[in-house]
Formats: sequence, C-alpha cells, structure tokens
Amino acid sequence: MIDLREHCIQLLANRGVSVADIADCAVYLQSAYFPNLKREDMVESVMDVLGKREVQYTIMTAIAIDKAADRGDIDDPILLNMLREDDGLYGVDEVLAYSICNVYGSIALTNFGYIDKDKFGIVGELNKKNPDGSYPGNHNTFLDDIVGAIAASAAARYAHSQEN
Amino acid sequence: MIDLREHCIQLLANRGVSVADIADCAVYLQSAYFPNLKREDMVESVMDVLGKREVQYTIMTAIAIDKAADRGDIDDPILLNMLREDDGLYGVDEVLAYSICNVYGSIALTNFGYIDKDKFGIVGELNKKNPDGSYPGNHNTFLDDIVGAIAASAAARYAHSQEN
Amino acid sequence: MIDLREHCIQLLANRGVSVADIADCAVYLQSAYFPNLKREDMVESVMDVLGKREVQYTIMTAIAIDKAADRGDIDDPILLNMLREDDGLYGVDEVLAYSICNVYGSIALTNFGYIDKDKFGIVGELNKKNPDGSYPGNHNTFLDDIVGAIAASAAARYAHSQEN
Amino acid sequence: MIDLREHCIQLLANRGVSVADIADCAVYLQSAYFPNLKREDMVESVMDVLGKREVQYTIMTAIAIDKAADRGDIDDPILLNMLREDDGLYGVDEVLAYSICNVYGSIALTNFGYIDKDKFGIVGELNKKNPDGSYPGNHNTFLDDIVGAIAASAAARYAHSQEN
Repeated sequence: MIDLREHCIQLLANRGVSVADIADCAVYLQSAYFPNLKREDMVESVMDVLGKREVQYTIMTAIAIDKAADRGDIDDPILLNMLREDDGLYGVDEVLAYSICNVYGSIALTNFGYIDKDKFGIVGELNKKNPDGSYPGNHNTFLDDIVGAIAASAAARYAHSQEN
Repeated sequence: MIDLREHCIQLLANRGVSVADIADCAVYLQSAYFPNLKREDMVESVMDVLGKREVQYTIMTAIAIDKAADRGDIDDPILLNMLREDDGLYGVDEVLAYSICNVYGSIALTNFGYIDKDKFGIVGELNKKNPDGSYPGNHNTFLDDIVGAIAASAAARYAHSQEN
Repeated sequence: MIDLREHCIQLLANRGVSVADIADCAVYLQSAYFPNLKREDMVESVMDVLGKREVQYTIMTAIAIDKAADRGDIDDPILLNMLREDDGLYGVDEVLAYSICNVYGSIALTNFGYIDKDKFGIVGELNKKNPDGSYPGNHNTFLDDIVGAIAASAAARYAHSQEN
Repeated sequence: MIDLREHCIQLLANRGVSVADIADCAVYLQSAYFPNLKREDMVESVMDVLGKREVQYTIMTAIAIDKAADRGDIDDPILLNMLREDDGLYGVDEVLAYSICNVYGSIALTNFGYIDKDKFGIVGELNKKNPDGSYPGNHNTFLDDIVGAIAASAAARYAHSQEN
C-alpha cells in the first residue's frame, strides 16, 4: 500500500516546501510559550499532522489545483484568473486550510489566522510576488495556506502534548 | 462586470442541475415544518444563496475539479483515482459543502448532513452509478455535495425568514 | 490528576446517558456499511472520542449550561426561555456539537446531521417532550446534540479504522 | 417584539464593551488595506454583524457563561476553575467565536486568529490580569473571543463591500 505521508512530503518538496520549513513556522508560533523550542522538537508534531488521512487528502487536492492553475488546465477562465492572481476575496484556499486545523482544535485555528497574516518564513516565501505584482513560476494560491495550516496544527498539537 | 450568479447557474446547468432541482431539495428539507411549501416559495432562497460571493467561488472551484477529473487533467494519479471513484473517505468535497452551509448557520449544516445521507432528488441522481459501480459520464464527486449544501442553506434561510 | 474521561462519563450518566447508549447510535450510523456491527465493536471508538480533551471540555460546558437552565441560574431571561424551549433557531448547541465532529472529519459532520434529524435511540429519548410540549425534568437543549456528535464521531472513527 | 440587537448591545455595554470599541478593532484589522479608514466607516458593519440572529444568540450565551462563572453558578468545579483561569487549552470560547466568523467567511476567520493573538484594543483590555495572575472583577473567558470575532467579521464584511 502507498505511504500517503511520504507521497505528500514529496508533493510538498516538489513545490519547494520541506518538513523543516514547516517545523520552523510551528516553532515560531510556540516561541512565546516555549522560548527554547527547537526545530527538532517540532518535527514529530509536523509528521503526526502529515500522517492524518484527512490532512493528506487536503494537501493532495490543494497542490493539484495549484498545478492545474500553473498549466492553465482549468476551463473556467474567471476561476483561473482568480487563482493566478490569488484574489484576496477568494477564500476556498483558507477553507481547505481550516479543514486541517479543525482536526487539532481551536488553538490550531487561531495559530493559522496569525501566521496567515504574519507570513513568517516559508509561508511568506510562498507569497512572494514579482515587482510587477505577478507571481514567479508556480502559483501557490492554495499551498501557502495549507503549509500555514500544517504548521498551525503541529504547534497546537505540541501545546496540548506539553500539558499531558 | 460579470454576473457571477448567472455564471454559476450556467455552470450548474451544464452539469445537469437546475435551480428548480435545488429548490425541490430545499422544499423536501422543510416539508416537516411547512407541509404546503412549494418549489416557487423556495426559489428566492436558492437565488439568495447563489448570490453570495463565497458560495459562487466554491461552486466554481468544485465544478472545475470535477471537470478536471473527467478530462484526467489531474497529474496526481492517486488523487485522480479517488476523485473518479468518489472514495467514501475522501472528505474535501464535504469540506467545500460545509463552507457554503456555514454562511447560513447550524441549521444549514444539519440539513446538509441529512440530505447527504438521504440522497433526495437531484442529490441522488448525481450519485447514480452504473451496474458495474463506475459512474456514467461525468464525475460528480464535488457537485453532489455542493448541490446538497445549496439546498440545505436555502432551506435554513427559509426557516429563519419565517420566524422574523 | 483527575481522569477527565471518567468525569465526563459520570456527567453523562447523571443525565441518563451511558456509553452503551452512545455506542448503539454509532452502530446505527454504520449499519448500512457494516451490517453485523455490534455495540461491543463500537465501544472502543466511543471511549476514544471521550478521551479527547477538546471533546471533554465541550461535554462539561454543554452539561453545565443545561443544568444552569434546569436551576434557572441564567440571568438573561430571553436566553433562559430559549434554552428551556429548545428554540429551533437557537444553534449554539449544534455549534458545540460540530466542534466535536470536526476532530473526526467530514464523515462525522455528515453523520451528526443525519442522527440530529433522525433522532435514533438515546438522541430521540433526550428530545422527548410532555404532551403539553414542555420537557420532562431536565432540559437537554445541549445534551442531545453533544450525544449525537459523540456517536457521529465514533462512527466516523470506526469507518476510517476499517480502511487502514 | 424585543430588539435582540439592542439587547446584545446592552449586554456588551454592561461588560464594558461599546460598539465604538469593536469598530476600532475592525478598523485596525483593515488598516493595512484602507489606511484612511475611520471608526465611523466601520460602525455600519459592526451593526450588521450584531443584527444577525446567530450572532445574537452566541453573544447572549457567551456572556451568560462568563456571568455564571463570576457568580460561581456552575456546579462542575473543574469547569468553573478552568473558566476562572481562562485555561489556555480550553477552546469552547474560540468555538463560539468561530461560529460568528463563519457567517462572514474565511477572511473573518483569519482576522479573528490574528486579533486573538495580537490582542489589540478592547480585546487586550478584556484579557488584562492582576499582577498576581488573577482577573480583576469580571471573568471574560468568552467575552474577549466574542468581541474579537465581531470585529473580525465586521472587518471582513467591509472588505467584501469595497469590492462590489
């Protein structure tokens, strides 16, 4: 049987996102409560999040939509344009992100809202535009939110684990 | 400026779903409380749901994914297979449906859960499989949930409107 | 340290709900897919749901509100009246129920919507009214939804577990 | 018939929160996109949010729980203690907040996550503790999240309105 976690880690790597990148975002989200937290401490939580089937399906779907936007393989020109511009009022990307956070509860949702605006680390990298406002290479309309949600969920899982 | 509601009504029609079909599902969901409710009474609520931007973006995204699955324009073979089989544990379609219902509150979410299992009317039609278990023509992995969510939301809006 | 799962099982028992009652509802929700499923097969899933902190806090909060409504210890007369009547448009009870289901993904949400309308077993018992429309003894405005959500989540967990 | 919006504005005022306080938070959340936005421009959006029934019921429920915690009228000592300490892992308050944001879509949810961590204005005021870590006077476990959610939703409504 295929290891869907490995499949998702590969899909993320092909879009320029590593487990370490995500762990760094999760560490950042917890740094106020655990100042000495290190990337290594958070990798286990990131891997736990990536091991959840619901999360895996969401990652696969999000990246498939971004890649279809890259190729122009979306036959609704209005939607294709919104995806390529990352229209600020298009919220389906956040909807998928919330479905990841929901598995880890309300702390994960709050963490996501923060990093989505704060754009720390890889989340910010994935949002970088060219001087002319266009996006370099890949369209990451969905990916930046998914990565933020995985980090937010890993941070929430860590917070809960420290209490038990 | 493009009328996104008209655009979505056209996208739905091209997949075999009419506003009347959705209104019939909404009437069914309210029939226990309003026995004499008619399709005409519910059309306004369906149109109101179809007028919400968040709903329009979700419809456009859901149908674009189903059509990409029809064409095979999804370069992740594992995901493409799940979409074509409508894998019972793949839940991203319900996630998009819930994002529609959320706008109309908890009654809409409960209505959706009911019609999604009960498969009344067009929701059931969209789920019909061939004797061999394959799907005839279009893949409606996302569409059946989106249509159920629009009907569930229209029914919830009607219930609230009758109280005021 | 207090075992919050035991605390919640006791709180539920004091309101007339047993783990077996919840397991029976979960079995009912899965019976279409697993015809020979028995109560014993589902108890482990119910106990897993009751072991989640987010679920425990929700159960404690929901039952505390119902008991405050019983005692009249809610100083907003409009709210107290809605809680005692279980006003059909009051949706905060479903909101708490969804926060339980969210932990188990979209199948749990759909299951909840179904049993909340279908009112099988203990969920129906908790909804029983007197001939005059008043509620006998306890007000279970929140409890019926919480119990439905635990059963819906246990059923979803079982469905996922059978695939792995 | 009672004006539930006025009822909620009164309930908020009695806990030290004005419509202007909430409008200031909403202005803050939009200031990056609309630098010249003023409190007066946002009051209409705040009033729109306060006019939604689902929001009104949530405000009434949240404030009733905070007041019951003040009075000690919660007969579960474990829950009462968590409410009085505003336990960081107790997430039911955020769950109610999200049910408000959901009505206004994903932008509202992201806004909430940001202000919930950033604690601007009245949201921060409601979180102020005494030097000994105890809370002065009222327990606002639910209120701070509800106020943040109303502001986040009003800001999202404003953002959408500027596009149409």
